[in-house]
Amino acid sequence: MRKDGRKPNELRPIKIERDYLKYAEGSVLVEFGNTKVICAVSVQDGVPPFLKGKGQGWITAEYSMLPRAGQTRNIRESVAGRIGGRTHEIQRMIGRAMRTALDLTKVGERTFWVDCDVLQADGGTRTASITGAFVALADAVIKLYNEGILNSTPIKDFVAAVSVGIVGDEVLLDLNFEEDSSAKVDMNVVATGQGMISEIQAMGEENTFTKEQFDKMFALAMGGIKQLVELQRSFFEIKGGIWFRKDIKQARLE
Amino acid sequence: MRKDGRKPNELRPIKIERDYLKYAEGSVLVEFGNTKVICAVSVQDGVPPFLKGKGQGWITAEYSMLPRAGQTRNIRESVAGRIGGRTHEIQRMIGRAMRTALDLTKVGERTFWVDCDVLQADGGTRTASITGAFVALADAVIKLYNEGILNSTPIKDFVAAVSVGIVGDEVLLDLNFEEDSSAKVDMNVVATGQGMISEIQAMGEENTFTKEQFDKMFALAMGGIKQLVELQRSFFEIKGGIWFRKDIKQARLE
Amino acid sequence: MRKDGRKPNELRPIKIERDYLKYAEGSVLVEFGNTKVICAVSVQDGVPPFLKGKGQGWITAEYSMLPRAGQTRNIRESVAGRIGGRTHEIQRMIGRAMRTALDLTKVGERTFWVDCDVLQADGGTRTASITGAFVALADAVIKLYNEGILNSTPIKDFVAAVSVGIVGDEVLLDLNFEEDSSAKVDMNVVATGQGMISEIQAMGEENTFTKEQFDKMFALAMGGIKQLVELQRSFFEIKGGIWFRKDIKQARLE
Amino acid sequence: MRKDGRKPNELRPIKIERDYLKYAEGSVLVEFGNTKVICAVSVQDGVPPFLKGKGQGWITAEYSMLPRAGQTRNIRESVAGRIGGRTHEIQRMIGRAMRTALDLTKVGERTFWVDCDVLQADGGTRTASITGAFVALADAVIKLYNEGILNSTPIKDFVAAVSVGIVGDEVLLDLNFEEDSSAKVDMNVVATGQGMISEIQAMGEENTFTKEQFDKMFALAMGGIKQLVELQRSFFEIKGGIWFRKDIKQARLE
Amino acid sequence: MRKDGRKPNELRPIKIERDYLKYAEGSVLVEFGNTKVICAVSVQDGVPPFLKGKGQGWITAEYSMLPRAGQTRNIRESVAGRIGGRTHEIQRMIGRAMRTALDLTKVGERTFWVDCDVLQADGGTRTASITGAFVALADAVIKLYNEGILNSTPIKDFVAAVSVGIVGDEVLLDLNFEEDSSAKVDMNVVATGQGMISEIQAMGEENTFTKEQFDKMFALAMGGIKQLVELQRSFFEIKGGIWFRKDIKQARLE
Amino acid sequence: MRKDGRKPNELRPIKIERDYLKYAEGSVLVEFGNTKVICAVSVQDGVPPFLKGKGQGWITAEYSMLPRAGQTRNIRESVAGRIGGRTHEIQRMIGRAMRTALDLTKVGERTFWVDCDVLQADGGTRTASITGAFVALADAVIKLYNEGILNSTPIKDFVAAVSVGIVGDEVLLDLNFEEDSSAKVDMNVVATGQGMISEIQAMGEENTFTKEQFDKMFALAMGGIKQLVELQRSFFEIKGGIWFRKDIKQARLE
Repeated sequence: MRKDGRKPNELRPIKIERDYLKYAEGSVLVEFGNTKVICAVSVQDGVPPFLKGKGQGWITAEYSMLPRAGQTRNIRESVAGRIGGRTHEIQRMIGRAMRTALDLTKVGERTFWVDCDVLQADGGTRTASITGAFVALADAVIKLYNEGILNSTPIKDFVAAVSVGIVGDEVLLDLNFEEDSSAKVDMNVVATGQGMISEIQAMGEENTFTKEQFDKMFALAMGGIKQLVELQRSFFEIKGGIWFRKDIKQARLE
Repeated sequence: MRKDGRKPNELRPIKIERDYLKYAEGSVLVEFGNTKVICAVSVQDGVPPFLKGKGQGWITAEYSMLPRAGQTRNIRESVAGRIGGRTHEIQRMIGRAMRTALDLTKVGERTFWVDCDVLQADGGTRTASITGAFVALADAVIKLYNEGILNSTPIKDFVAAVSVGIVGDEVLLDLNFEEDSSAKVDMNVVATGQGMISEIQAMGEENTFTKEQFDKMFALAMGGIKQLVELQRSFFEIKGGIWFRKDIKQARLE
Repeated sequence: MRKDGRKPNELRPIKIERDYLKYAEGSVLVEFGNTKVICAVSVQDGVPPFLKGKGQGWITAEYSMLPRAGQTRNIRESVAGRIGGRTHEIQRMIGRAMRTALDLTKVGERTFWVDCDVLQADGGTRTASITGAFVALADAVIKLYNEGILNSTPIKDFVAAVSVGIVGDEVLLDLNFEEDSSAKVDMNVVATGQGMISEIQAMGEENTFTKEQFDKMFALAMGGIKQLVELQRSFFEIKGGIWFRKDIKQARLE
Repeated sequence: MRKDGRKPNELRPIKIERDYLKYAEGSVLVEFGNTKVICAVSVQDGVPPFLKGKGQGWITAEYSMLPRAGQTRNIRESVAGRIGGRTHEIQRMIGRAMRTALDLTKVGERTFWVDCDVLQADGGTRTASITGAFVALADAVIKLYNEGILNSTPIKDFVAAVSVGIVGDEVLLDLNFEEDSSAKVDMNVVATGQGMISEIQAMGEENTFTKEQFDKMFALAMGGIKQLVELQRSFFEIKGGIWFRKDIKQARLE
Repeated sequence: MRKDGRKPNELRPIKIERDYLKYAEGSVLVEFGNTKVICAVSVQDGVPPFLKGKGQGWITAEYSMLPRAGQTRNIRESVAGRIGGRTHEIQRMIGRAMRTALDLTKVGERTFWVDCDVLQADGGTRTASITGAFVALADAVIKLYNEGILNSTPIKDFVAAVSVGIVGDEVLLDLNFEEDSSAKVDMNVVATGQGMISEIQAMGEENTFTKEQFDKMFALAMGGIKQLVELQRSFFEIKGGIWFRKDIKQARLE
Repeated sequence: MRKDGRKPNELRPIKIERDYLKYAEGSVLVEFGNTKVICAVSVQDGVPPFLKGKGQGWITAEYSMLPRAGQTRNIRESVAGRIGGRTHEIQRMIGRAMRTALDLTKVGERTFWVDCDVLQADGGTRTASITGAFVALADAVIKLYNEGILNSTPIKDFVAAVSVGIVGDEVLLDLNFEEDSSAKVDMNVVATGQGMISEIQAMGEENTFTKEQFDKMFALAMGGIKQLVELQRSFFEIKGGIWFRKDIKQARLE
């Protein structure tokens, strides 16, 4: 039994609230326990220079935390004048995950900006970001389709992410901040609705681990992702290869 | 009648949700119509160098907007690498307003960080920030008192703010974004529970105005602030000069 | 009687020296007592992106202080690598004041850069900047007219500014640094030759004030601005709606 | 057969040249085929603020590429004024790997700066950096021991890294730039001399992969790391738990 | 005969106005023809870290140009967010020249900030800066002596600087902007009252020159410096090794 | 006799290794004793804005040191977020020297980037950079000629540089770090194969020197440059005004 009463393979209460922002093409408030993230997708014409003229689109993700998202106040990166390494690492991961989800060759020369802003941080902010951002991204794509800007909804599959780690001798799913701080090994997995792996990051800061431990963690993660995908799935209906919004404002896993 | 059905002297629906963040010493989500701002107050030991050793406290405010708070996406100031002039102007105004509210000589060498982060922007973000931040600040002070860190709650008075402007020929209270964009004159007033003025900023970007127009705008603003203070007041009980939290989670003006 | 012998409603000795710089389209050295500011106006073809193709002009102001303008040396903002909040606040105010003075729809797609550089600072640098910059701006406009680049001199009116404040119990005009430092309330007013208000900024850092006090300060400010406009007026002759330079190198108010 | 004649499970020619720099406490030039990296370890007294007073040491890694390391010239990050996301990602990975290698509780309040500067880039710069940096780090530790500054050589184990990927349908070890550019899946593994995993990063930018593919890649990587550790081992002799330098200037794997 | 009527070996009209700023420990406005520079010296307790505890002082120079000092407007370095190469080069040269003038071992752990701000630029801004800054520095030292902070005036000698160049086939002294722009070779010399050389910078951007040409330029420069030193000398009286201010407000060379 | 056994007029062992980098259009590793610099020349289409449309080329040099090039570790300029004054000074000098060597009117609108990265620093890094960069630049020009991009090799002359200084009472050639640190006067000379001067920088940080001392230093420097040019010459063959590569991989002066 974990401090918060969960079993080792149990996710925290998960909640996704759709259309959280009024203006964004897609947006959600996603909660993994006390971790709360706003994911907003903005669509702009044009692509970065390295893609110009290739007729395909692009997805860029940015990640930030409110200064008082956590237990102590952090200095704003705008005040520091530079974006830190951790932020870079996370937003690059979110971007890769989203680019797995969408067929960029079918969205024209458009950029999807995925902004993940952490209101409250209690571990797993990057996995919550990816899981929520997928719903916002799909909503934005559907909006473009509904407005006739796209003639299909080129979403390749659901994409969700979860953390897993070794705390003491136990392999635990979806670590909160306290568990994460004392974990010997920390792993994030991004995978699709069909159970294909998009990304694995496993690291044992000052510790090491075996392939057996890795496999155990991996299995737990895939189980969690399966549930997260089910939650995502409740927002959509797919007919004839086209994605549609179900009339659902929020969904929970408890 | 205004486009959104309000009378000239009518505020938008106002809502303050208390304890919006789990970790901050005080926090609210404040809404002025579609404008939504998280105000979080963090208390840290120590003061800026220019106050060291003087035995008094300090309040610093920071203001930011999520990139997709508005109708189009804005580049993050952390990415730009610098804080813009408008941000500086607003956060300095919030800081002054909060320093009006608190007797800094009675809080010890402590800094209150007031973070106002705009989730959604539809005009009046700075006045919503000030109005919400006061509640978060008072909650933080009460928390310090309850924990025995302070032996009083040295809040001098309520402080709230509202915008007013001249649109066409009419003087309107609490402008939304559309009204603000077409206003000839734009004015922000910060005042206290007892009707004392803390700050006035009135400007006619490319236009000018008379003292009579100023007086009319001022009167409207003071009427709006009075209502905002009543809303703030519903969160607190003051007995023997000490402020206490009433057991209220949120309050609305509609 | 004030420390420097002035009456409450008395300006400091004011001096404007025209054509202070050789190359700028318009330039003055303006002095409000010991406060000395160089105001230089540079005209460039083109406007910022948000105005491109609209056929109108723009005015941008920048403000800076020499490191040893004041009683102690300040670090240069170029060395700090960023422009501070106070600088932003002031240069935005100067820009707004100048945009009140000029009909931007009649100057073509041109940008007027207004550079206010404080050589010496003894209070009132922003009001001296505005008062001096107007003369430099009008000179630049007249130069464009004389060169046949403009076919009118679309100056709408004189614009000048002055500070006023409450020190002890007295309302004083045109505060010097010492007075400003001990003022309970500090107010800056920008107004036109015809007595129309362009901007009011009144603030009581840690103090508050009443409408009656405001009105008293306002009246004093308008009296000061009237004198400053007379000084500005001595540089120009207006015939048939066209502004001309009078052959005057400098003017004083004493 | 690969374009450069290697078998799928074959490393490129590897070379480590010891003491490449005269002043650093430890330094190597490491080559993985055409990829060439200088790894320099500098020892400084003191630790970052978050560790002060805890009696332990720290390792920080920095990574950079010469502007003309690759096929086209890149702008220097010093000129850009900021460190990019890829650089942050890589140097954080090198730092974690090195912190796995050393028992930081036994080196006193000292910081080991690990600088990896890529002279020439042909794929695998981060894995070459880690593999080379370990030798430089161990040399620095031995130097401190020889000078009596440390009374042991608290190196926990060898640490090396290699890349592996799926190109076309084949799983290949130690990708060069051309292979890396066309890889569907890209994976980096960091492991120890005893075959313990320190870190895994596997990602399928726009592609996905199965657990079976992962396992195949992993096995190939561990085979490569085993050889790299053998190469590292040739520089050292371990007697009674203490590491000593063998009198070897360079070693190769061909 | 030169365009402005000077002979090849003739300086422009030179003017130094003392005590140009009210607050600085020493300050002048120096003019070399149309080039005008404010030189201000500020004295602060303390020295940079690399000198701490050595009991000696330091001199740091900073150089800047007002945006409209020249024929076209330049972007401010504070807006650019970084100091350019030319600025660095010039301010380092001014610093070295000033450190030649003062015996830093006899001023205690104090820093002399030498700020050279160019109001108007018509060639020779660095040489005017050095020539003017010396007078401001000596005034600051005398002020410290008069206040009993120093018990001597440890000025080693006068220091002045002048430019010289080859334009067409002629060697010219003290180039103005137009001459400088067409010079084949450009040289700056810093020397002392006793004719000792402090610094020479001679460069032939895309051209080269002979030792004979160098010697001719050098001789011309030394002649100019001799006159500049005489001008500087008129401000001071040296008795018993101690420097005193003569009661002179300004001096000219015409 | 000097500490390292050299005579006053003796260069350190000099070595130039050609084609040190695989991708650059020209590159060398140049060594002046323990000072080691990689010089890489990259050719890009296009020129800076101020040259656009003039039909000529440009050369820009950048200089940097690895953090552990010297006896203690220096912070990276990319981490500091800005390029220091010394770096600016040196890279501007390298750029001027290279622009002396090439007839920019005959290379089309192309930019030659000259990157000098110091691997190890023991005095004379700027003179080693210039001496090595010339060979890399000439190789790049020859490459463009061989590829038919240029129809001549518009190299005007060899360009090399050396330092000289006064240590104690002696004039010494090619100072190493230790000598440089104790030098009273420090001078760098850049000159051509035909003995024409390109640049002289002589400075006596806190010391001064006479014309006689200057002449003595100058003569020594020109003797050193003559030898350096001979070394450079061994890499090339000039026939009919066209430069060709000799089949030489490295050359030494010992």
